[in-house]
Amino acid sequence: MIENNKSSEEKGNVIFVGGKPLVNYVRGVVIQFTKNNSSEVVIKSRGKFISKAVDIAEIAKRSLDDLKVFVKEIKISSEQFESSGKQTNVSLMEIVLSK
Amino acid sequence: MIENNKSSEEKGNVIFVGGKPLVNYVRGVVIQFTKNNSSEVVIKSRGKFISKAVDIAEIAKRSLDDLKVFVKEIKISSEQFESSGKQTNVSLMEIVLSK
Repeated sequence: MIENNKSSEEKGNVIFVGGKPLVNYVRGVVIQFTKNNSSEVVIKSRGKFISKAVDIAEIAKRSLDDLKVFVKEIKISSEQFESSGKQTNVSLMEIVLSK
Repeated sequence: MIENNKSSEEKGNVIFVGGKPLVNYVRGVVIQFTKNNSSEVVIKSRGKFISKAVDIAEIAKRSLDDLKVFVKEIKISSEQFESSGKQTNVSLMEIVLSK
């Protein structure tokens, strides 16, 4: 599971979007910028969670308007994996928020 | 319907992602770059269709590898609208592919 990636979790400023409620991830982003005083937060998502990641970035940006948080970079890419003996591609997205 | 936006359809190089099969949009992008010889194609999406737009961009990029098509820019934003008397936000995304 990408959400259990230790090295990234240790960094703290990477948020992996999964099946939890939207507000959990928004809160995670806000805490990074406020309590943890991060200058950058990376929102990582894949497949169907990409739409949710954009919602999270947009809501967090609005909530953090006074900190002048902005979208610094958005990267998309693909990852190949084998599913039932067939090669399948999944799309990945990284949104970098900065203040 | 955003898909019937006349002025953008006339430009031709803007693809609006909606409920049609993924392959229709991929074909649309490929035709713009090949038959219509566009130097740029913009893939616009909103809400739940954002994930699909990223898939379309990634698949089109792979299909057009020989034309060296790349992601030039990705922009996200929000739009407010009233639904049953309540203000709601929807996320928007624009992916600019270039060759």
